[in-house]
Amino acid sequence: MTVSATLAANEAIAARRAAGQEVLALGFGEAGIPVHPLLSQRLVQAAGQIAYGPVAGIEPAREAAAGYWSRRGIPTDASQVLLGPGSKPLLFALLHAAEGEVVLPAPAWVSYAAQSHLLGREPIRVPVPDGEGGVPDAALMDAAVREARAAGRDPRIVVVTLPDNPTGRLASEESVQALCETARELDLVIVADEIYRDLVFKDVAFPSPAKWAPERTVTTTALSKNYALGGWRVGAARFPDSDLGRRLQESVRGIASEIWSSTPMPMQHAAAYAWSDPAELVERVAMARRLHGSVAKAVAEVFAAVGCEVRAPQGGFYVWPDFSPLRAVLAERWGATTSADLARVLLDEFGVVVIRGDAFGDAPEALTVRVAVTGIYGESDSERLAALVSNEPLEMPWIAEALEGLRDKLKALVS
Amino acid sequence: MTVSATLAANEAIAARRAAGQEVLALGFGEAGIPVHPLLSQRLVQAAGQIAYGPVAGIEPAREAAAGYWSRRGIPTDASQVLLGPGSKPLLFALLHAAEGEVVLPAPAWVSYAAQSHLLGREPIRVPVPDGEGGVPDAALMDAAVREARAAGRDPRIVVVTLPDNPTGRLASEESVQALCETARELDLVIVADEIYRDLVFKDVAFPSPAKWAPERTVTTTALSKNYALGGWRVGAARFPDSDLGRRLQESVRGIASEIWSSTPMPMQHAAAYAWSDPAELVERVAMARRLHGSVAKAVAEVFAAVGCEVRAPQGGFYVWPDFSPLRAVLAERWGATTSADLARVLLDEFGVVVIRGDAFGDAPEALTVRVAVTGIYGESDSERLAALVSNEPLEMPWIAEALEGLRDKLKALVS
Repeated sequence: MTVSATLAANEAIAARRAAGQEVLALGFGEAGIPVHPLLSQRLVQAAGQIAYGPVAGIEPAREAAAGYWSRRGIPTDASQVLLGPGSKPLLFALLHAAEGEVVLPAPAWVSYAAQSHLLGREPIRVPVPDGEGGVPDAALMDAAVREARAAGRDPRIVVVTLPDNPTGRLASEESVQALCETARELDLVIVADEIYRDLVFKDVAFPSPAKWAPERTVTTTALSKNYALGGWRVGAARFPDSDLGRRLQESVRGIASEIWSSTPMPMQHAAAYAWSDPAELVERVAMARRLHGSVAKAVAEVFAAVGCEVRAPQGGFYVWPDFSPLRAVLAERWGATTSADLARVLLDEFGVVVIRGDAFGDAPEALTVRVAVTGIYGESDSERLAALVSNEPLEMPWIAEALEGLRDKLKALVS
Repeated sequence: MTVSATLAANEAIAARRAAGQEVLALGFGEAGIPVHPLLSQRLVQAAGQIAYGPVAGIEPAREAAAGYWSRRGIPTDASQVLLGPGSKPLLFALLHAAEGEVVLPAPAWVSYAAQSHLLGREPIRVPVPDGEGGVPDAALMDAAVREARAAGRDPRIVVVTLPDNPTGRLASEESVQALCETARELDLVIVADEIYRDLVFKDVAFPSPAKWAPERTVTTTALSKNYALGGWRVGAARFPDSDLGRRLQESVRGIASEIWSSTPMPMQHAAAYAWSDPAELVERVAMARRLHGSVAKAVAEVFAAVGCEVRAPQGGFYVWPDFSPLRAVLAERWGATTSADLARVLLDEFGVVVIRGDAFGDAPEALTVRVAVTGIYGESDSERLAALVSNEPLEMPWIAEALEGLRDKLKALVS
């Protein structure tokens, strides 16, 4: 097992900076804004909380998470909620508890497949509907699962990401609905990773699978992306109010008790506050959404301007350019014929850190990379805060400069 | 997978108390003392730290942990240290990285076997040397591993607990040395779980396997027991400075990156302080050691007084009474013929929560239970603090009362 591609990028960025090398850090999915003082205040107030507490999390945090989901159209009781030290370990426990193979969209976030491999199971990758991201195409999934079963394999669970990492796209209602129906026909558990759900740029009806397949959808969230609290390690899962849901929940709770015991207690108190959606934090998330949306759009345009195919980002903070239209020049100029080559040239020749598309399950020769746009929000908390509160973040000098630098580097890459 | 026996006891205690039922809480291994204000202060100072940070942990915390081990006779460089959200997930990752079956002492802490089961591997249990705890008897391990290999199994790792949970015993130098030699002959990795290492009651040479098998011993620690910070979720592993060590470390780092990303950042700053052994905290641990020692000794005497076999506790905060001498009366009076029966009678008839011995791998009919003594230190932080700083903790009225209550209940049980 090698280190997660995204976390490796994080460490590579830090190492290059420590060595005094210039780097344009577009590799790591950190939200890039400072902590809201009301949240750190909650952590401070809970600093004396040292008990392990219940495996599932403290009641106020579970209640708050239930409220969070209920206000978003998925009625939830606190008893359906289980906290974890980030949603990543919860996802691992879910894949374990499903006791069968997992179906993943292609492309998909790097760790789903890696977690499946840790469980000794090869994931079944199904392409996303054309132009979308985060959900397997329902018809293709139907065929793939039936074929896998005919070959003696045992797929039992499908993971979707809404909005998506790496593509930055939000799957359409139609695609999610079709996915739900097919999952029901195939008797697959659905895991809806909605860690970026509050960061959808336009006000649209959010296509949560729990709406159409309430009996089989487990939804996960965390503070890491919406509130930029990756280093606090607190997430939550919502289990269906069904026999299946209760069985899964009890199994995940057992796995949790043996792998991580419980969730850091002071952070649970902060989460209880955050998930209650106080006005100050709702406003904060709105500002974050605006910042991510502006910069992601601008970054996508920079890639499009040099000839990449790139769909407009719809949520989160990722852009997913496809360099296939530039295949000839990349091969000729740099000998780059794969996503890995492309990422290496961007790093070695231009100091640009991105993640090669095949790390997300894309074909090695696809010439895709994942670009995390938050790395250009600023070098200091004051820069990042200025960008966050600005109506025109693209006019922040350091952001304008980074975009200009990226434009120049990409021009040099493909000219 | 059901919930860990110890965490289930914790939840049972909380539920009984919430229901207004009286309970003598001797089930859960929480250290039972308040947080030292200098530690919560460090957490407060680091409340703004929200980055994921490196998978292995921040440099100051790794440096501090290296110093912690170096000062305890195991020279360590920061590069050999990997942090995790508690030592429990690190232990899981180690068992995973070993890629083979695990040898465990019998009895042993509940979660080693459960983690092995999560990996789809049946542990190989080897009795401890007579009267000891925490290490498999070396000669019996040699025979068991050779037999297992002859039968096509693939044991690759052995876990020891120093001092031990559940027995409260510290293995002798001779037993650990023999274990190390046998592990080398059998080419087994040794995991030394030394989470209670600073809580050994007498000042003895600590028998760390890293002394005799430095090339193959991974040592783990955490803040949970020494500093009573279970709810803060921070632990560390020290890998050998050898090819084997570096291979294991890189594998664990990869697993960590995919299951939990990194360790809660504010807690890493507190750990950097704690592991530097500042005088105030060294004194705090000395007081904790005195409290655990006094109460464990007194609790052991209460069990011995009614006729249990019980070895003097040597470290940590557990007592491991064996009720076999009382087999006849337990069977006749309560129909109790197994450890499970015994624990149930203690709970249902007397409100005493302990953990049945078979949860630790003891034979079901052994009539052993694990008693965690910290549950009687007090109901409030001020009571627990008073007990901690007292030269005569047994004279604290609530502790005296709890011991008297236990004495009466045990007399009623066996009369």
